[in-house]
Formats: sequence, C-alpha cells, structure tokens
Amino acid sequence: MNLFEKTLHSASIYKGAIIDLEVHDVELPDGQTSKRELIYHNGAVAVCPITPDNKVILVKQFRKACEKPLLEIPAGKLEKDEERISAAKRELEEETGYIAGELEHITEMYGSPGFSNEKISIYMAKNLAKGKMHLDEDEFLEIAYFDINEIKTLLDNKELEDAKTIIALQHLLLNYNHYK
Amino acid sequence: MNLFEKTLHSASIYKGAIIDLEVHDVELPDGQTSKRELIYHNGAVAVCPITPDNKVILVKQFRKACEKPLLEIPAGKLEKDEERISAAKRELEEETGYIAGELEHITEMYGSPGFSNEKISIYMAKNLAKGKMHLDEDEFLEIAYFDINEIKTLLDNKELEDAKTIIALQHLLLNYNHYK
Repeated sequence: MNLFEKTLHSASIYKGAIIDLEVHDVELPDGQTSKRELIYHNGAVAVCPITPDNKVILVKQFRKACEKPLLEIPAGKLEKDEERISAAKRELEEETGYIAGELEHITEMYGSPGFSNEKISIYMAKNLAKGKMHLDEDEFLEIAYFDINEIKTLLDNKELEDAKTIIALQHLLLNYNHYK
Repeated sequence: MNLFEKTLHSASIYKGAIIDLEVHDVELPDGQTSKRELIYHNGAVAVCPITPDNKVILVKQFRKACEKPLLEIPAGKLEKDEERISAAKRELEEETGYIAGELEHITEMYGSPGFSNEKISIYMAKNLAKGKMHLDEDEFLEIAYFDINEIKTLLDNKELEDAKTIIALQHLLLNYNHYK
C-alpha cells in the first residue's frame, strides 16, 4: 500500500527558540485531504554513562511540560550543524563532568512521531574520565548513581517515565555482559 | 535542591485539534527567569499484542512529522475523559481487529518531555480474540506479524525508531518467559 501523505499547503504558525509549529493540508492515500499539526525540532542526543565501577549516572531535572522532575540519562539538543556524536560528548561532559573514552550508538528514536520530528540518538558511554561540568544558564539538575540492581528496580517499579531513559536502560539490561 | 520552575506568565499561541502551544515565562530555581515553549496533548495509549502463536502484531503507518512510515505497536490518542485502559482496548480492536482477553500495564512514558506533556501508557495484550477492525477516516496502515527472533533482529538492526515500540519490545525480550 502507498501510505505517503503529500503536503498540499503548509502554514507556519510559530517559529520559536526550540520548536516550530506548522499546519499542513495533506492528501491522504485515498485522495481525501486532512490536516496535520506538526512540531519541528532540530533533534537531540542522549548518553547512558557507565562508570568504571559499573554505576549508571542519571540526572534529575524539572520538566516544565510535565510539571515535575524526571530522572533521565544526560541529554540535550543538537546545536546548529552539530554532528550527533560531538553533541553526545559535549552534553555528557556539560551535565555530568565526565568525558567518554568510548561512545557506542545504540539506536535512534522518535518520541512523539504523531506530531513531532524530534529524533533522539542514544549512546552508551564507557571508560569515563574526569572533565568539567558546565550547565546552561537555565539548566538545573541533580546527579545520582545507580548500580544494575537499582536500575532493575527503577524499571520494575515504573519509576522511570522518560522514553529515551527507559530505552537505554532496558538495552543495558538486555546486553549487560557487553557493558560490565 | 528545589528544581521547580514556577510559571510567572503564560501565553496561548495555538489551540489545535491534537496539540496546544503555550509559551511560559518561568522563574528558575536561582530566581532568574527563562522562557519555555510547551506543547500540551491529551495523552495516548499503546498496546503490544501477542497472538496465541507468539507473534507480535505491528502496524506500519506514515508519520507526516517524520516524512516516512514507521513500524509501531498499535496506538492512539485518548478521547476526551476516556480511561486509559478503555482507550487501549478500543485502539487495539480498531487498528488490528483483535480484542484483548488480557491487558497488562507495563509503563508510562513521556516521549519528548523537553517540550511536550504527551504521556503514553503502554500495555501488553494477550489472549486475543477476533473483533472488528475500524480505522479513523484519515488513518491508513499495514499490519504485519513478527516472531520473537524477527523482533530481536528488528531491534538489533536499529530498524525500529518509534520510542513506545522499542520500549514494549525490549520489555517483551526481557520478560519473554512471562508472555510466551
């Protein structure tokens, strides 16, 4: 089946610092038309850091959209024209103060493909060395360390609600012999 | 540390069929102010259906924001005042034609907490019985069945890019004895 939806007309509603909003009139596969509300985002990277003593570093950060803090792997937006692997190294050091000796790409993910093109590249980081923490002006977070049993408990108790974090930690559990 | 960000002023930019956009001026933990671009969404449910012969049912659907089709577990938006478990049953039957004899809640996820409050509840579905498929007017999708080895290959080859789908299928691999 041809599933493609062709844009017949698009209107820019908002151009912001982080997201743009457009509304598209699209032609559906059966020739009918419909509207799509679309959020465009430059993309992001996320890194699951594993310390030499096999702890995972998570950061707790207030998420205004959700009106609560979430426990997440370190992550951040791509800067303009920035390569994803460079952004991953940069965000890890900025948020945790660690430099990754080894970064392994595990997957790409769309968190909200129903309306947003935000694509997050997820990496595992090993062989960490001390670097320099440097948060953005409007960024406030707490750092915490978890061993593999605590990670398993967080997942089993549904205490993690951030998609990229659940994906990275389930990947770690599925492949623990490779990472420890 | 108190991480809370208090809204000092909010402006409604757009009220749509699926999403609303607001821009908030917030007070940061250090007393400074910043802007947050926020997308409000009513929430969604997703269901990973397992057939009596241990196949997983996935649906391929064009995602306009991503400009390509994605392979996903069946999912859909909550209707106004709808309970999540009812929406999960409804979406599964509408998209696949199957009624779930058993639905197990596995987790909640925010896909894009940096800007959106869209929360997706993910369920596993077993003991499937034949019901009646009924797609929305603007919904077009293809259904496909995958055994556990094919699921593992899809994940290993990074062929799945939808967050809720990766989460549900990793959960299935981590707990396969419970589901088969």
